[in-house]
Amino acid sequence: MKAKKRKHIVVIGGGTGSFTVLSGLKKYPVNLTAIVAMSDSGGSTGILRDELGVLPPGDVARCLVALSSSDTLMRTLMDYRFDNGNLKGHRFGNLLLSALEKMTGSFDSAVEKVSEILRIDGRVIPVTLDKVNLMAKVGKRIIHGEEKIQMTRLNGSLERIWLEPVARANPKALAAIRAADAIVIGPGGFYTGVVTNLLVRGIPEAIQKSKAKKIFVCNLMTKVEHTRDYSVRDYTRALEKYLDGSVDAVVYNNKQPASSLIKRYAREGDTLTSWDDVPAEHELIGANLLSHRESKFQKIGTPSKEASLVRHDPVKLAQIIAKIVGVKNGK
Amino acid sequence: MKAKKRKHIVVIGGGTGSFTVLSGLKKYPVNLTAIVAMSDSGGSTGILRDELGVLPPGDVARCLVALSSSDTLMRTLMDYRFDNGNLKGHRFGNLLLSALEKMTGSFDSAVEKVSEILRIDGRVIPVTLDKVNLMAKVGKRIIHGEEKIQMTRLNGSLERIWLEPVARANPKALAAIRAADAIVIGPGGFYTGVVTNLLVRGIPEAIQKSKAKKIFVCNLMTKVEHTRDYSVRDYTRALEKYLDGSVDAVVYNNKQPASSLIKRYAREGDTLTSWDDVPAEHELIGANLLSHRESKFQKIGTPSKEASLVRHDPVKLAQIIAKIVGVKNGK
Repeated sequence: MKAKKRKHIVVIGGGTGSFTVLSGLKKYPVNLTAIVAMSDSGGSTGILRDELGVLPPGDVARCLVALSSSDTLMRTLMDYRFDNGNLKGHRFGNLLLSALEKMTGSFDSAVEKVSEILRIDGRVIPVTLDKVNLMAKVGKRIIHGEEKIQMTRLNGSLERIWLEPVARANPKALAAIRAADAIVIGPGGFYTGVVTNLLVRGIPEAIQKSKAKKIFVCNLMTKVEHTRDYSVRDYTRALEKYLDGSVDAVVYNNKQPASSLIKRYAREGDTLTSWDDVPAEHELIGANLLSHRESKFQKIGTPSKEASLVRHDPVKLAQIIAKIVGVKNGK
Repeated sequence: MKAKKRKHIVVIGGGTGSFTVLSGLKKYPVNLTAIVAMSDSGGSTGILRDELGVLPPGDVARCLVALSSSDTLMRTLMDYRFDNGNLKGHRFGNLLLSALEKMTGSFDSAVEKVSEILRIDGRVIPVTLDKVNLMAKVGKRIIHGEEKIQMTRLNGSLERIWLEPVARANPKALAAIRAADAIVIGPGGFYTGVVTNLLVRGIPEAIQKSKAKKIFVCNLMTKVEHTRDYSVRDYTRALEKYLDGSVDAVVYNNKQPASSLIKRYAREGDTLTSWDDVPAEHELIGANLLSHRESKFQKIGTPSKEASLVRHDPVKLAQIIAKIVGVKNGK
C-alpha cells in the first residue's frame, strides 16, 4: 500500500458513535482523522472540567482508543473507571488527558502525547480548543450546559442552540477538512455529539467548501428528548440546517431489530429511526447496520448495558463507507 | 559492553533514597534491580490503600521513574500531583499503578505494565505482595501504620517493630538478592524506607546468604523522631541488628553542609549524621556526598522544598558505589 495514495477520511462526531466508525475504518488503508465535539459537561468529564478547569477529555479519549494500535490492556486501561472513594466514576483516560493538560498548559499537547503513548494510527483533533458550553433556548427557557440539555425534552420548541462563548475552530480541524477526500458525520447524540461540532465558527463553512464527499451516518434510533419520532429524512434535514448546506450521501439502517429490544426502548419513548421516509436528491444507502450484540440480549437476558442496546456494527458500517469512498481491500 | 558481563546490583530501600541511588547508577553499565518497601500508608498512597484496597504504589512509582528511559514529559507526568478537587494530592503515577492493579487483579502485573510504558532499564520489585502494615511497640504503646509511626518519637524506647500480618518475601526479590553481585541498602527513612524491607520474612536471611558485596549507604541526617543524634556507627549498628548480620562496606558523607541549612534542620531537632564515630571492621568510605542543590537554598532563599534539603548527590554516590563494586566507564 502506498501511503501517498491513501484517501483522507475525516470523521466528525463525539465519543461512542465516532468510536464505532473509527474502529471499523481503521482496518482499511485510509488516513483517518477524528474531529471531536468539545462541549461535554457530564460525568467524569464534567467533574474534571469543574474541578480542574480543563477541557472535556472524554470524547477525545474514546477516539484515541479507537485509533490505538496498543495492546488490549493499554486500551482497556484508558476506559477503566474507578469505582470507589473520591476517584469513583473517573475514567483513567480522562485523568491522563487532564493531568497532561494541567502539566503542559495545552490540551493539544496532551492529545499529542497520548496519541504517542497509545500509538494511534491517524489523528484525533478537538473541534475547538476554546472552553465552551452548549446552550439551548427551548421555548422561553435558556438551558445551560450539555448535561442539562441532554435531559431536556425539546418537543419541537428548540428556538436556538449555540456554544458560549463563541467557539473558534481548531485550525488543525479546518486543515483536515480542507484536505479530506471524504467527511463522515455521525452517528452520535444528535445535538450533543454531532451538531455541537457544527456550532463551532468556521466548521460548517469549511465542510461546504471542501471537495470531500460528505456522508451522513444516520442514527439507528430516535431519542424522545431531542429527536422524537425522527425519520431518516428528518435527521438529514435537521443536520443540513446546521451544516447550512447539504450532504452527498446518507447511510441508514433498514433492518428491524428484535422486537423485545425495541419494546425496551419504547418504554423510554425512543423508537427505531423510520426509513420509510428518506431525503430526496441524495445518494441513499440503506442496509442492515445492526451490531450482533443485540442477540446476546435476547439469549441471556441483560448481562450488561452494552448487550441490550441497538448499536451500529463497526464492520458493516465501515464496509459501506469504504464503498462510497472507493476504498478496497480492508486489512 | 557485553550484557552477560554486567554486574547485578540490587538496591534496597523506599522511594526518595532509592530514586537517588538508581538515578546515579543507571548511567553505569550494570543490571539494576530495585527492591522496594511496601508499608507506606500516608499521603496519596495511603488514600488509595484505604479507598481502593490496593497495595502502596508510591515508592514503586518513584523507582520506576528513576529507571525510566522515557522522555522528560512522561517521567514528569508520573510525578504530577493533582492540586484541586477530589483528586487533590494524588500523584498520577500512583493512579496509574492502582488502576492497573484493580484491572488486572495483580500489583505485579501492574508494575510490569508500567515498566513497559516507561521503558525502564532494569527491574522494580515490591519486597512483598502481601498487604501489610508497619507496627511498632514504643514503651507500652502499640502504634499502627507507617504514617503514624513516622510521627512518633521513639526516644530510645522502641521495643519492637514488625509488619502485620506476617509479610512473605516476593520470590522475585529473593531471586534478585541471590543473583546479586552487590546489594546497596539505603539511604532512606530509616525504619520506614530501609528497615521495613528487612522485616519481610526471608529477606535478611537471603541477604546474608548472598555472596554479593553488601553496601550500606548511611543517611546524611538524623531524624529526631527515629534516629536522634545517630552517628554513622549508630546507623550501621541499628541496620545490622535488623539484618541479623553485617554489611561489608559503609558509605557516608563527611562534608559539612552550609550552616544556614543545618540550622534550619536543627529547629526540628534533626542533625547532621556524625562521622566522628564510625563502625570498626568495615570497609569505610567517607566522602563529600552532598547535592549541589543546597547552594540554591543559600543563594535564592527557599524557592522550593527540594532546594532547601540536605540531599545525596546521585552522581557522587554512584561513583563511589561503582568503585566499590568494581564497575568502570559510566555512560
